[in-house]
Amino acid sequence: MPEPGDGEVLIKTLYMSLDAANRAWMKGPSYRDAIVDGDVMPTFALGRVVESKDASVPIGSVVEAEGLWSDYFLARAGNLRIVPDVPPLSHHMSILGIAGKTAYFGLLNVGRPKAGETIVVSAAAGSVGNLVGQIGKLKGCRVVGIAGGAEKCSWLVEELGFDAAIDYKSGNLFKDLKAACAGGIDVYFDNVGGQTLETVLFQMNLYGRIVCCGAISQYDTKNPIGPQNLPGLVVVKRLRMEGFIAMDFPEHEARAETELRTWVKEEKLKVIEDIVDGLENAPRALIGLLSGENRGKRMVCVAME
Amino acid sequence: MPEPGDGEVLIKTLYMSLDAANRAWMKGPSYRDAIVDGDVMPTFALGRVVESKDASVPIGSVVEAEGLWSDYFLARAGNLRIVPDVPPLSHHMSILGIAGKTAYFGLLNVGRPKAGETIVVSAAAGSVGNLVGQIGKLKGCRVVGIAGGAEKCSWLVEELGFDAAIDYKSGNLFKDLKAACAGGIDVYFDNVGGQTLETVLFQMNLYGRIVCCGAISQYDTKNPIGPQNLPGLVVVKRLRMEGFIAMDFPEHEARAETELRTWVKEEKLKVIEDIVDGLENAPRALIGLLSGENRGKRMVCVAME
Repeated sequence: MPEPGDGEVLIKTLYMSLDAANRAWMKGPSYRDAIVDGDVMPTFALGRVVESKDASVPIGSVVEAEGLWSDYFLARAGNLRIVPDVPPLSHHMSILGIAGKTAYFGLLNVGRPKAGETIVVSAAAGSVGNLVGQIGKLKGCRVVGIAGGAEKCSWLVEELGFDAAIDYKSGNLFKDLKAACAGGIDVYFDNVGGQTLETVLFQMNLYGRIVCCGAISQYDTKNPIGPQNLPGLVVVKRLRMEGFIAMDFPEHEARAETELRTWVKEEKLKVIEDIVDGLENAPRALIGLLSGENRGKRMVCVAME
Repeated sequence: MPEPGDGEVLIKTLYMSLDAANRAWMKGPSYRDAIVDGDVMPTFALGRVVESKDASVPIGSVVEAEGLWSDYFLARAGNLRIVPDVPPLSHHMSILGIAGKTAYFGLLNVGRPKAGETIVVSAAAGSVGNLVGQIGKLKGCRVVGIAGGAEKCSWLVEELGFDAAIDYKSGNLFKDLKAACAGGIDVYFDNVGGQTLETVLFQMNLYGRIVCCGAISQYDTKNPIGPQNLPGLVVVKRLRMEGFIAMDFPEHEARAETELRTWVKEEKLKVIEDIVDGLENAPRALIGLLSGENRGKRMVCVAME
């Protein structure tokens, strides 16, 4: 059991977020240092403070912080955020956590869709994708999801209100997209990169926007093949491709949280959570996430209280 | 000799612009229809009106319009612009024409560099690139050019005031860039795409901007290889890649022209023109442009008056 020093607190892990980013971190240094063999996996975590050496963080507080794949971890008081101790706490990992903010800021601040425009989102049944589609619908857009498997696709349309969903595993992505997006694509929210990005680029409208959220298709590829139509189509169609992470918009955090909370309360937004029990199942659950077995936000429940 | 109909004028071609875009148009439909075998090559042209069937365009006016590779061409009065009949008329093809506006809008409206930032521009000795570098210096940036050959490189530094220039033909682009841009790259003005873009991407700073102006390296490639680090690095570094053409900013045209004219008048900006004489030399001059033999804005002088 680690001992908190001055200004630190000891946190009991309740939930750990599982993200494609965990895999990306192993690829090399990025906005953070690379994770290398022997490191404990870092994670966005929700926990309860069990010991405190900082007056600003009382014992019993529910906090979010960068934690580790472990039952307990230390954090500096300045590096955590106390969140309301209101159930369900798992919402801090999904709709009010990184997934919710990634979808919200990526779609609205980066993609900036106008009502009536067509949005395509890949990994549409995933933690971020399902929210991108639902938020797109709330903003008056036509929304088309790309996901793996017929079952996920019908779920997107029937349960989440997507206008259409395309099974990329069927092998007809180009034709299926063409059929689903007769007027072309205005905003593409890209979670996968690679071949899918290349295919979508051909169908973007003039002044279209590509929200670059992830490139999950590339993380396990030794010699990834870049989209052949880049940057050519960006020039010809005057596209904007832009990367971001959820933490890039601190000045808009409050608005995002209020709006997301309100949508959930008013039942305009469904919160889809995929909770795996037990710390020992984290590795398997991450591998499963990367092969697309989750629906909505996957997280690990390490302890209930 | 074509006959103007009602609302049309007959124009005697004085100058024809040569652009990498001429080649791109042959690749397929883009923001305009594809040029196919048997078509007369379209061109941005400057000419003098010799017959007019529209009261708003007097005979003798100097006009710019989309013309053809020919001594005379027809244009509708609504599709041309009368320009001041002030020498040198060639400036309407270079600094006040598409090259000047492409450099101006691409760098300032799309790239949006701040003073002190580092700008890299490829095809730096070309019609647009040389202006991008000069305008970047006027805005207080550090400017590094990429060009082909040691001679062009020393010309960029000694004559045009670039801080450094790199000969991509030397085969050490990555290392040479690293040496010239120790603090990383904030804005990359990309005229070439391909391998050069891939190399530059690795050295972009967080929140860097890639101005996608052209992909000249790809126009003659059968199976172009996309940059392998796309879209991965766009996500990780939160880059913005954005395409544009000079005509995308009609509301800022007046400001651009005034500012460019002022810089030339005050000798803050050198106008580099590469004028080839004779309509019959246009094909050879275009091929030469695509292999990089020009310095500054290449155009064909079809007639002096």
